[in-house]
Amino acid sequence: MQPFVWESRIRFVDTDASGRIHYTALFRHFEAAEFEFLRSLGCSYVTLEEGYPRVHVECDYLAALRCDDTISTAVTVDRVGGTSFTLAFSVSLEGRQAAKGKITVVCIDRETQRPRPLPDRLSESLRTS
Amino acid sequence: MQPFVWESRIRFVDTDASGRIHYTALFRHFEAAEFEFLRSLGCSYVTLEEGYPRVHVECDYLAALRCDDTISTAVTVDRVGGTSFTLAFSVSLEGRQAAKGKITVVCIDRETQRPRPLPDRLSESLRTS
Amino acid sequence: MQPFVWESRIRFVDTDASGRIHYTALFRHFEAAEFEFLRSLGCSYVTLEEGYPRVHVECDYLAALRCDDTISTAVTVDRVGGTSFTLAFSVSLEGRQAAKGKITVVCIDRETQRPRPLPDRLSESLRTS
Amino acid sequence: MQPFVWESRIRFVDTDASGRIHYTALFRHFEAAEFEFLRSLGCSYVTLEEGYPRVHVECDYLAALRCDDTISTAVTVDRVGGTSFTLAFSVSLEGRQAAKGKITVVCIDRETQRPRPLPDRLSESLRTS
Repeated sequence: MQPFVWESRIRFVDTDASGRIHYTALFRHFEAAEFEFLRSLGCSYVTLEEGYPRVHVECDYLAALRCDDTISTAVTVDRVGGTSFTLAFSVSLEGRQAAKGKITVVCIDRETQRPRPLPDRLSESLRTS
Repeated sequence: MQPFVWESRIRFVDTDASGRIHYTALFRHFEAAEFEFLRSLGCSYVTLEEGYPRVHVECDYLAALRCDDTISTAVTVDRVGGTSFTLAFSVSLEGRQAAKGKITVVCIDRETQRPRPLPDRLSESLRTS
Repeated sequence: MQPFVWESRIRFVDTDASGRIHYTALFRHFEAAEFEFLRSLGCSYVTLEEGYPRVHVECDYLAALRCDDTISTAVTVDRVGGTSFTLAFSVSLEGRQAAKGKITVVCIDRETQRPRPLPDRLSESLRTS
Repeated sequence: MQPFVWESRIRFVDTDASGRIHYTALFRHFEAAEFEFLRSLGCSYVTLEEGYPRVHVECDYLAALRCDDTISTAVTVDRVGGTSFTLAFSVSLEGRQAAKGKITVVCIDRETQRPRPLPDRLSESLRTS
């Protein structure tokens, strides 16, 4: 099966005085890819009742990205646990991998702010994606 | 009376590929100055019950700012209305004005999301600052 | 003639604790619209030799925008001067205007960092857009 | 020896619609701490001839941070290699750890954009910090 891929363009605001992307800016692209991936599963965050804070993030930057570069971010499910899940991101530019990262998202009850089981529908969608 | 002045440093994340500050990054410095100005009046936003969205912003950029520059942002009250107020910001670098801007903040009821009168304490603090 | 319109989605990173968009985040959408507008004129910034810092920005926020809202940003040329130009932005959500702003961009020589005449091709493209 | 500690305040722009800090915003605080740590070693990035892109970042978020929270970020040297180094960050709020992360920075030649040995002065400063 084809992985979910999100295309986006590196913007000027994403760059820093080195002339390349500022490392934090790539996470804005990850976030867009993450939200669109969940939307593609029929589980848009904004329709879910729970809170979904990120509790872990990591990223390796393999190549410089510059303003106007169009990147493709492939999103795959790395792990689905009881109360959290991990997504893997692979960014490529013109067919070559430019960055790879992971984000772990935990499901919390908005009232108690404590972890709670992933809703079945989300859990199943992630497992079968 | 001396105006309120907030010192801050331009960070690498504030810059873009031009080597200068990205114009939007200066607003993060404005925001820190705004919040600290209100704190200095005894009216920290986080202690206020109402919502305070910005409804107008403007800024003129007069000189380039670069990573590690330490800027001084003077905050003054430009106008206090019934339901909103306008703050003026003047940024200087080494004694020379580098930017100037204004931000208009409206007081809203968090429930109805409609404008409501500024709380007396805030209104008076702003008028006498 | 139809104005240039750029569609984009409000992202979670664009929001703040009020639940609405943080006012500065809208400028990232303006920037994408600005760059794509110039690209549509055949004058992508990244292909131009000069520097193009923003020297003035203003924006009025007319309605709350929230995560996942899809906005349309119409870009029109407000003014073309000798060394600078002003673009106007009108943001709408579901057919209602949600924000409007202007950005003035000055053309500078990258070496001297001083203003210089707009390249003819850019100037003409802006005038006839 | 006492680790280097940088104090900063979570800003409104750092938050998102969850009411907590957006995970990417913490990296702005890491960056300020990183730059000030190097300054404290007498090795400010802006005075160094080489480029210093980040090639790896990771962070665990242990507690929610909110607007106006004042955090302390302790910076320690995790590893000093031939062409790169890793800094560790530990964020605490009111004496409790709220986040921990690592950032790996590689030294590159600005012309060739290829890794090169860390300057002796920086390497020694990091080893003895």
